[in-house]
Parts: sequence; C-alpha cells; structure tokens
Amino acid sequence: MAKQLNIGMIGYGFMGRAHSNGYNRVANFFPELEYKPVLKAACARNADAIKAFADTWGYQSTETDWRKLVERKDIDAVDICVPNNLHKEIALACAAAGKMILCEKPLAMNTAEGEVMCQAVEKAKVANTVWYNYRRIPAVTFAKQLIDEGKLGRIFHYRANFLQDWTISADLPQGGNGLWRLDVAAAGSGVTGDLLAHCIDTAIWLNGGVTNVTAMTETFIKERTHTLTGKVEKVGIDDACAFLCRFDNGSLGLFESTRYARGHKALYTFEINGEHASIKWDLHDLHRLQWFDHRDAGNLRGWRSIHVTDGDHPYMSKWWVPGLQIGYEHSFVHQVADFCESLAKGTPCGPTFRDALETQKVCDAVLGSAKTGQWANV
Amino acid sequence: MAKQLNIGMIGYGFMGRAHSNGYNRVANFFPELEYKPVLKAACARNADAIKAFADTWGYQSTETDWRKLVERKDIDAVDICVPNNLHKEIALACAAAGKMILCEKPLAMNTAEGEVMCQAVEKAKVANTVWYNYRRIPAVTFAKQLIDEGKLGRIFHYRANFLQDWTISADLPQGGNGLWRLDVAAAGSGVTGDLLAHCIDTAIWLNGGVTNVTAMTETFIKERTHTLTGKVEKVGIDDACAFLCRFDNGSLGLFESTRYARGHKALYTFEINGEHASIKWDLHDLHRLQWFDHRDAGNLRGWRSIHVTDGDHPYMSKWWVPGLQIGYEHSFVHQVADFCESLAKGTPCGPTFRDALETQKVCDAVLGSAKTGQWANV
Amino acid sequence: MAKQLNIGMIGYGFMGRAHSNGYNRVANFFPELEYKPVLKAACARNADAIKAFADTWGYQSTETDWRKLVERKDIDAVDICVPNNLHKEIALACAAAGKMILCEKPLAMNTAEGEVMCQAVEKAKVANTVWYNYRRIPAVTFAKQLIDEGKLGRIFHYRANFLQDWTISADLPQGGNGLWRLDVAAAGSGVTGDLLAHCIDTAIWLNGGVTNVTAMTETFIKERTHTLTGKVEKVGIDDACAFLCRFDNGSLGLFESTRYARGHKALYTFEINGEHASIKWDLHDLHRLQWFDHRDAGNLRGWRSIHVTDGDHPYMSKWWVPGLQIGYEHSFVHQVADFCESLAKGTPCGPTFRDALETQKVCDAVLGSAKTGQWANV
Amino acid sequence: MAKQLNIGMIGYGFMGRAHSNGYNRVANFFPELEYKPVLKAACARNADAIKAFADTWGYQSTETDWRKLVERKDIDAVDICVPNNLHKEIALACAAAGKMILCEKPLAMNTAEGEVMCQAVEKAKVANTVWYNYRRIPAVTFAKQLIDEGKLGRIFHYRANFLQDWTISADLPQGGNGLWRLDVAAAGSGVTGDLLAHCIDTAIWLNGGVTNVTAMTETFIKERTHTLTGKVEKVGIDDACAFLCRFDNGSLGLFESTRYARGHKALYTFEINGEHASIKWDLHDLHRLQWFDHRDAGNLRGWRSIHVTDGDHPYMSKWWVPGLQIGYEHSFVHQVADFCESLAKGTPCGPTFRDALETQKVCDAVLGSAKTGQWANV
Repeated sequence: MAKQLNIGMIGYGFMGRAHSNGYNRVANFFPELEYKPVLKAACARNADAIKAFADTWGYQSTETDWRKLVERKDIDAVDICVPNNLHKEIALACAAAGKMILCEKPLAMNTAEGEVMCQAVEKAKVANTVWYNYRRIPAVTFAKQLIDEGKLGRIFHYRANFLQDWTISADLPQGGNGLWRLDVAAAGSGVTGDLLAHCIDTAIWLNGGVTNVTAMTETFIKERTHTLTGKVEKVGIDDACAFLCRFDNGSLGLFESTRYARGHKALYTFEINGEHASIKWDLHDLHRLQWFDHRDAGNLRGWRSIHVTDGDHPYMSKWWVPGLQIGYEHSFVHQVADFCESLAKGTPCGPTFRDALETQKVCDAVLGSAKTGQWANV
Repeated sequence: MAKQLNIGMIGYGFMGRAHSNGYNRVANFFPELEYKPVLKAACARNADAIKAFADTWGYQSTETDWRKLVERKDIDAVDICVPNNLHKEIALACAAAGKMILCEKPLAMNTAEGEVMCQAVEKAKVANTVWYNYRRIPAVTFAKQLIDEGKLGRIFHYRANFLQDWTISADLPQGGNGLWRLDVAAAGSGVTGDLLAHCIDTAIWLNGGVTNVTAMTETFIKERTHTLTGKVEKVGIDDACAFLCRFDNGSLGLFESTRYARGHKALYTFEINGEHASIKWDLHDLHRLQWFDHRDAGNLRGWRSIHVTDGDHPYMSKWWVPGLQIGYEHSFVHQVADFCESLAKGTPCGPTFRDALETQKVCDAVLGSAKTGQWANV
Repeated sequence: MAKQLNIGMIGYGFMGRAHSNGYNRVANFFPELEYKPVLKAACARNADAIKAFADTWGYQSTETDWRKLVERKDIDAVDICVPNNLHKEIALACAAAGKMILCEKPLAMNTAEGEVMCQAVEKAKVANTVWYNYRRIPAVTFAKQLIDEGKLGRIFHYRANFLQDWTISADLPQGGNGLWRLDVAAAGSGVTGDLLAHCIDTAIWLNGGVTNVTAMTETFIKERTHTLTGKVEKVGIDDACAFLCRFDNGSLGLFESTRYARGHKALYTFEINGEHASIKWDLHDLHRLQWFDHRDAGNLRGWRSIHVTDGDHPYMSKWWVPGLQIGYEHSFVHQVADFCESLAKGTPCGPTFRDALETQKVCDAVLGSAKTGQWANV
Repeated sequence: MAKQLNIGMIGYGFMGRAHSNGYNRVANFFPELEYKPVLKAACARNADAIKAFADTWGYQSTETDWRKLVERKDIDAVDICVPNNLHKEIALACAAAGKMILCEKPLAMNTAEGEVMCQAVEKAKVANTVWYNYRRIPAVTFAKQLIDEGKLGRIFHYRANFLQDWTISADLPQGGNGLWRLDVAAAGSGVTGDLLAHCIDTAIWLNGGVTNVTAMTETFIKERTHTLTGKVEKVGIDDACAFLCRFDNGSLGLFESTRYARGHKALYTFEINGEHASIKWDLHDLHRLQWFDHRDAGNLRGWRSIHVTDGDHPYMSKWWVPGLQIGYEHSFVHQVADFCESLAKGTPCGPTFRDALETQKVCDAVLGSAKTGQWANV
C-alpha cells in the first residue's frame, strides 16, 4: 500500500499548474513508487481564484494565508510556487514547522537569502528540492549519463543560451500577475534569475563548478507602466545578460539569455565539446539529443540526431513506445517521481537548496561583474 | 456541476493506457467541459492483470467478461481497446445496450464488418467515435484549419508515409500479447490496417475522398513462430504496403508504410502541395508544422518551421506557454475533450464509425489491388 | 605532357554551360590526368548566339551545322547537348565518324531509339557516356561506396522523389528555347524523361535492376500557348508521374516526380533502407549524406548528418578543406575527370549508352503502365 | 574588347588555389565585365613548387623573389597570399610600385602595421581589397541587403561563432607549410586573427562598429613540436577566444571561436535579432539563410529556410537554376568580379585596407582585454 505524501501548494500560476500536473500523473506512470502525492491543500490570497484552481486540479481544500497552510498537521510537504521575493520567508517557516519543501527556482533573491534558507532546512533536516526541472528532460538526463560514463573525455567548451522574445513591445507593462517577472522588487533580477539560472543549474550539474565570470547586462526598454501603481516606472530588471566564464575543470563557458531575440519563444540550448565527443540539446525539440562521436569511422562521422524515446533512455520506459515523444510537462512528473523515490531511500533529491545555492552564487557574480566591469570570482 | 461520463474500458494494453490517460487528464486542462469522464470499470479476461491496471489508472472496478461490462447500468460509454477481430461483436453488443462507443482503430477487420457496425450505432443512435488520434495533434488540426480556409488553393499532390523498423528481426514471433499485430487472424492485415489506416484517415479528412488505387504489398519474413501455438507458421500479414491513388478533387496520392525502414521508429509524415502553399508534418517532431507560402516575397520564400505551441494554435491555449511542447499522448486528451464537447452539443465527434468506414474501404481497395495487380475503385 | 581531348559541343543552353564549365575546370583540380579537354568548337544554328557562347567559354571556333562539326578532323569527342528528339540522329553520325560521344540525358526519346544508338556506338567502338551527373555528387558516390561495401545488408526499400514547382502557372507557354521540355515533340515525355530518369539511373546504379512497375501520370494544365506556333495547343507531356516497382533484389521501390510541388525548386531525394543501415540524400543539401546504422549502441542510435567534405570522401581531396562545401556544377567536373581517366585506362565511363538504355526501358514501362493501368515488366 | 587585369600572385597554398580559381572562372560567369584577369605570374621561394602551381592554374610565368614580381611592368595587381607576418612589407613595396593589391586576411599582424599599410595605399592611390570572402557568399550578401532595407528594425543582438576541431590532437606540430597558423611568429595570433577576424568583418559590415569588448582566451595545448626547429616549443597562439561586446548601435554582441569544438569542421555561424525580424546563417549550409519575420500572421510565424539559389538572390543569376547550390569557392569568384567592376567604376572594393583595419582594431582590443581582464575600448 502506497504511503501518502500530503502536498500543500502555495501559488496557482503557470508553475502551480505544472507542479500540480506532476503530482497528479506520477501514480499513473510510476505505479511502483512507495510514496504517492496527495493534493491536500492549495493556498493563495484570492479566495475565489484558489478555489477554482483547487477544483480544477483536485486539491481537497484551500487556504488564503500561507502561514495557516504551513501550520497544518495534515501537510507533509509544501510547494513554494510564488514570486522570488517570498521564497525565503515561507521556506524558513516551513523548516521551522518541519515540513519538506519543494521550492520553485531560483532559490532566492540572492546568495545571502539562499544561504539562510540552506541553513534552515539543513538544521531542520527536512527534505528539500528546487524545481530546476530541465535536469529531468530525458535527453538532458541522458547527456548527464553520457558525461558521467566519461564518453566525452576532457571538456573544452560549454555554451548555453536561453532566448525568448516576449517582452520586445514597449507597451507591455511590468508587475502584478503574470508580469511580476519584469518587476525587480518581486523578481530580484530579470533574465539572469529567470532564464540563466536554468542554464547555470544544468551547466554545474553537467560540467562542474564555475570559477569566475565576466558579464554584460542590458535593459533595452528603460521604463514601463507598473500594473500595481498605474504609473510609468523605471525598469529595474535586466532584459538581456551574457557572460563568459571558466569552469573548475578548465573548460571555457559562454552563456547568454535575453527576452529580445525575435523568433525564439523559449529556446534553451546547450552544447558541450569534449575531446572525444560533443553534445547539443535545445528545448524547442526537447526530445532529441545531438551527439557527435569522433571515434566513429572517419568518413562516417556526423552529428547524430537521437530521438530520445526508447525504453533504454532515461525515464522513457515509463511512457509510450519508441518514436512517440513526450513534452515539457513530463520533466515535472519526473521530478516528483524522483522526490518520492528519494524519500523512500532517504537520499537527497537534487538539486537541493544547497545545490541551488551554487547557481545563486554564479548569478550574483554575473550581476556583480556586469556592474563593475570586472571579472568576478564565484 | 459537471455531468459524469461513466467509462467502461475493455482492454489494458498500450492503447488502454493512452486512452485512460486521456480520460484522467481532461478535467485538469479542459475544466470548462460540461461532461467529465469517470473511470467506472476496466475489463479483461486476466483478473490479476486488469486489477493491476485498474489500480494504476484509478478505475473503480473490474470485470473479466466484456459482456458483463456492456450490460452494467452504471456505464455510459464503452471504450473498445482490444484486437481488431473483436471490435464488431463488442460494438454490436454495445449498440444493442444503448452504450456510447469509443472504438480503437481500425474500425473493423474489413468493410463488410464495418458496415454492419455503422448500421448498428446509427440505428441505436448512440454516440460513436474511432480513435484516429492524429487528427488531434495540434499541428495536424492546424493543417486542417489552413486547408479549410482555402490557403492552399487547388491541391495537386498528397503524399504520406508511416515508417517503422521494429519487425526486421526474423526472431520476432507473431501472435499473443503485444504481438497480435503480426497475426493476421487477430489483426486482419499488417501495416495496412495498423499504419496506413492512420495515413488514410488523415488524408480523407484533409483532402477528401479517394477515387481509386493501385497497390503493392510484401511480406519480407515469410514464417515466424506463433506464440499461441509454439509452432513456426506462415506470416499472413503485409510487412509493407504502398499505393498510388487519385483523389476525388483531382489530386494525386502516394502512400507507403512498412515496418522494415531501418532508422525510423514511428515516422508518420504527410505533405500536401497546393497551388499557393504547401504543408509538411511528421510524427517524430509532431509539435512543428512546415509551411511554404508562394505569396511571400519572391526572394524571401522558404519553408517555415512553425513551432505549434502558441495560444492561437489549436488546443494549445489549454497547455503551457509558447515554446513549450506537448507530446503524443495529448492527442488522446484532445479527443476525449472533443467527445465530451460533442455530447454537450449533440453533434457527432469525428471520425465517427461512418467516417472510419471510408478509411476501411480504401484499405480494402488497397489490399484488393495488391492481390489482383489491377487498379481498384474505392 | 597532357594529351589533348578535343571537344566539339553541340548546343549552348543550360547544360551547354554546365558541361563547358566541367571541361574548363578539370585541369585545375585534377592536374594529374593524362587527358586534358580542349574546347575546339561549339555549334548551333544561331551564328551570333553560338559565337557569344564560344567567346564566354573559350571555344576556339564555331559551327552552325552540326554535321560539319561531326566531320571535323580536329574533333575527338562530341558533346550532344540538344533537345532529346535530336540525340539519335547526331549520335549515329558521330559513331559513323568514329567520334567519342558525351550525350546529355535521357539517352533517347524511347527504348527503340536508344537500342539503335547503343548498337551504333558499340559497333563503332567509340567511347560513350551519358550525363547522369548526380552519380558524381560526392555524397551520392559515397552512398554507392557504402552499399558496395555491404554496409546496408539486405535491402528492403528504395524511394526517390524529384519535386519542382516551376510550371504551376497556366500562363507559362510550351516549346522553343528553354521551354522545349514542355513540348512533347521535342522532349518525348515530361517529368518522366526529365526528372524521373535521373532518379531511375541512380536507383539502378545503387540498387540494381527494376523488375516491373505500376504507374500513374497526370497533366494538370491541359493546354498551353506554343511559342513556335503562337497557338494554344494541347499539352502532350506528363506534369507528374509516380510509380511503384519491384527491384530484382526483392526490394520495393516508390518513385515520384512532378513540377507541381509548391515549395520545391529541384528537390531530388532518395532513401534506401537496409537490414543494418539506411541512407538518405537530397539535392537541396547535396553536400550531406544522412546515415543511420543499427549497429551503433542502442541508446546512441540516430541519423547522422555527414558533411561530405573531408579528404576521405569521394572526389573531395581535390577541392578545399573539411567543412567547405562544393555545389551542383562539380558533378560535371567529376564526370569529365572520370571520362578522361577512363580513356587513359581504356575502360568504360558509366553510365554508358548501354547503361542508360536500362533507364530508358524503365521510363517506357512507366509511361506504358500509366496508359494501360496494368503492371508492366521492364 | 575586355581590358586585361594582369595578376601577380605571391603564395601558392590553400588560399593561392582559392584566389586563382576566382581569377580563372570570372570570365565564364561574368562575361560582361570590362576587366578580365590574366594570370601573369606566380611567385614563391620554392622554384619547383611554384612551377607546378603555375602549370596547374595557368600562370604564364614564375618568380622566386617577390620583390622581382612587384617590380615587373607587366603586373597590374599583386595578390598577397602569404603568412600574416609578411603582409606589411610586401604591401608597402606594392604601394611604392603603384600596384593594386588584393591582400589575404587578416590585413596585418596588428593595428599598428595595418595603419601603416592603409596610409601607404591611400597615399599611392592604388586599388586595394582584403579577402574577407564571406561577405560574398550570396546568403550573406542577401542578409546585408535585408538589413540595409531596414527589414529588421532596431537591432538587439548579434552573435557569431567560428568553430573548428582540427587542432585537438597534441601530436599536431606547429610552424611551417600548412601549420604556420599555429606559430605565433608567423600568424600573430591564433583563432582571433584566423577565424574571429572573419566574424568581426561580417559583423561590422552588417551591424556597424564595435564600441568595447571583454574577452577570454585559452591555449589548451601548451607545447607543440615546431616543424622548423624540430624542438618542442611553447605555443604562443590562442586556441580559443570568446568576447562580449557592445556595438555603436546599442546592440549586444557575443563572439566565440575555437579549434577545439569537436564535431565542427568550419562552422561559422551568425545570428542577428532585430525588433521586427531575425536572421541566421551558417557556413556548413552556406546556401541557406534562416529568416524569421514577426510581421507574418501570428499563427504562421516560423523560421523560414530560404534556399538562396534564385535569380533574384545576390550573384545567383550568374550561375545555374533555382535549387542548384553553389559552394565555398564561389565567394572568391564574386570578389574578383566585384573588384573588376569597381575598377571600371572607379569605386573602392570593400573591404578595403581601411575597412579591414577596423577588424584589426577589434582583434587587438580583444587580445588586449584577454590579457588585462578589463573591458577594452576599440
């Protein structure tokens, strides 16, 4: 008989849906798991909105004060799915209440906040994970597997982009529902925390620590109407950010993210060049991994487009048959499954808060370098 | 308050999972629907197997005799998810019992069976649909929309392939669970009914009726061990089938399917060439539609790779945000949603049995032509 | 010291340029060849036009009567680069005069003409070749090499298309310079002789003889103004042609060509599926070969996109460095080089007239089947 | 009657071949030009080698001392096709002798040398151009045309890579024929002058001047045998170089080049993101331009893959017919054609020495920043 993992969800936006879907589907596709999520309660200040959300997703109850949810005895784990500026306070309360935490990324507004959060969960010994979901796209997990097997040899280069184009219009306001990512008070930063943080998390996972960085940021649209004040206000976030870096393993890194790359909706791409082999992946065709192996016969060398849908690819035995692709949302199902499995095994479910703090440190170094014009150590 | 649509599922194989997932997810993503599927009962002869299936997917009860399931008062709709040779008998019983029917494709073993089934559901006036799910891949639905808007002009060519490579090994047996598709007694035909039927359904939907055909079939591996008898037996199915045809609209068609195309897992592709514009699609990158428009400025003409993930693309406003792709299984969620909506509206949900009979007629003409070496009228 | 190969060119159209470029460039890139082409004379009825052509390409003299050119003592080899209905007469005169012949494809108007031409050159023992140039695109030659090495194993499928879209407008006239390909009197057939002949030549080269065929042709625009008469006349050519076939090796073939595939300029593609490996190629990216090898590790299988620009790829050591692509015209340079080499060695330079006759036979069977509606033996 | 442009070539390596081919072919494909190159003399210290080269390419005579070639009365223009460290001296001699100069890129070892060279040619008023050939790949020229027409609107981003993998082996020596690019004494720098210089030239041409940069370089293999001394010596060049920059138009730039990107032979790519449209191009498929236009209907937006082979594409009316691609070498033919045309018109043929000096300045700023760790102004 499965053990219940009672979930309390705080938030109901885009990510609230993605996580809820993860909880709902895991038992259908990972029936062997010892733990099974139960959607116990959902919480938001707007009572009507959270009621509708709870009805749609099957949460058994609602709250309008997150402190009440955190205090409920029938909640085992809290999912923090609210703007970045609220992560720390909620996480500290959860840790104090002995709740497990599944926190949306980025971990915090900055390294200092993140460090406090790490200490809190470690002291409380509560299970914790951060939703850097792209680690669990099967093609990305497969890349990790190939690297861990040593198939690439010495690494020379790592490059990653996260390109979007949805904020090019100067008419787009900042702040409030759906647009808090443009409000520096709620988000802490722009593309750095929103997009580059994903790239950095994957990079550290695949290629190890970042030593130092030199960065550049830009805010192309300087002022936007703020939906909360109704006034035209200065834009405090970075619209674009790029940085060069060196990794601890001696390889060179190149990272860029922007919301002004016309033609790209959510094009997260990375490429790793090793001595023996190279890997490429992009989010717009997330079910494929590009693989080049120099050990192939000389005249037959070429980039292989691997359709990562076979039973021997990570996670894929759980789904359909070869050739039938899965999508974006499945990465969250996988993270729920791995979280459940880690509970049963008593092991951490990466990225933990501590893992995610490393990404936060790189983000801080990047934003710092962009201000000073100097290389910054991580 | 949603109305319940009580489902009785017969079968628990690959398609049983795909349909069940469709029923389970529709309320999360189409919360506005008046009807909501409820998984009332699942049925199969193997009691343990169907119990495990029911537990995983949340069916409330199980049956081991499909006749009992069909007779249950608490069942509104029966999902026929068993090998082709059982479709007719079950469908007739369902119609007699006044049950709605969602039948896995192909409709029947042949046109004669299909005709009987059509008459039964039409006489009984029960809602009926056939799971030609590819119509509801958003990119394919979008293609239909573009054609209906007249954007292609006069159509000259239609070509479609369905290429797989999973039966190349002579060691693969035929018959029994998972392999009944290789057993002519259970499947009726090989790739024609299994794969080409999909291509034909889409083609008729997008391009209208087929007039006549000339075809060729081949069975590359002539004998295989039969898992039910344990003996090496003659293979009765077609391993590969190709045909040329003329459509009623004057365009030419070219169709091919095989399980011997090394390198292709489930590559269903189609292309339509019109006077003004052309369309291409393939199942291995199902979230994209290729679009060529001759009305673009001459020097800027090119095939556009449309990432069909925006809110103004069919079905996509229900899912995530632009750039984040969905997968294979979502086509079934969409068909459930459309079936529920059609119930509320009192309209048919295509492809109905009658629609699917057209595909059956083309399949029969194809198999007939392959035998006689003559062109066959549909 | 190089031996001169004195060329007499009859014709000065698109193919006249392509062949002339081949003669002009071969000495720069294949300096080791014993024979070196010398552009001795060019011939056409229009004296001004042929003079201009000769000046541009460096022909030493001109003629306005092809019979004079054929009789000239200083000509070793005649290049027949005129509409199809003139091939036979010129070829017979050349053979009678003991001239080598490089004949534009297709060999003849039909098999009967071709047979006479074969007998003439064989009786005269003159070197002869037909300009099926695509054999000598490096990626195509490489495909041949891989097949000859047995890397694909038993072949199951061969499919080829040649898709164009340049005749869709009903305003396009037929006949005369540049448009003789639409005039059945000059061309003999439409896409069958013009485009499918290329596909068939490659197919026979790569996959062996064709046993029998069933075909379909269509003329979408029934009447066009004839530029020579000024009148609207019935169109006698096939605008589109498709056929199914069986090869002597037991594999199945699927061929299609059309000038009504909107969006495709000159998309010649072929794919071969073998037991162990598969190959794809297309003319729009002619410098790449797609390769799938089932013997790769299971989870790393994928189609490789081979950039055929390395020194160990056919012909490529003659050109630039890896990564730098060549184009369409180089196939003619290669054929000239191979013709020169075959002269030195005293071996045939394929496709010879006799080889090209096989393609003619398939074309005739295809056109015949399209008329009778019956399968036709080759 | 065409005017002769008498060429004296110094050098006979890879680029010597590419330029010679350009001179030889221009009259065939651009017959209307007033000036026609004549290969008067080729020069190198190795008498046998230069004799063989002259024979292959049709040079009328040879020299073994470049000073003699520069002094010859029958030479109009000198092509400097030797390692970078010799450019300045030869160019100054040519200017003094009143010869036109076609100089291989990069212009010089550094900005200081380049400035002297600019002053010399400007004082002497001799026609001068630098072989940044990629400007004249038709797809790249087409990109320039689209930008100049204002089709992209305000530019936000420019990114370019030049990725190779040919020096990964530690066994590869440095110095001498073919390997002088690895010898800092001959080359001045590594990938910066060899590869990034191309990227920078194109970028300045398409997107205007670079304001400032922050850069990073790396030498992965620290020591290599020197072919001239036979000893293991320190490697002085940069194996990889990346930089961030700001352009004068406010857009952000990201550049990278390396010879350690396994899987890439000569992958020069660039992308420009504008307010209304974006462009992508890469050298491995140089005949295509990727174009995204936000002004397309919302649901039909997608990246168009434009096959740049039509008569209304730059240079392409000179070659074949739509769909038939040209290759790398044609960029040199185009530069020769444009040089001849500029002579007739009395206009400069870009990039002139002065244009190329801007690229040199960026290279120097990049190399400087990589040393100091500071942003550097150009």
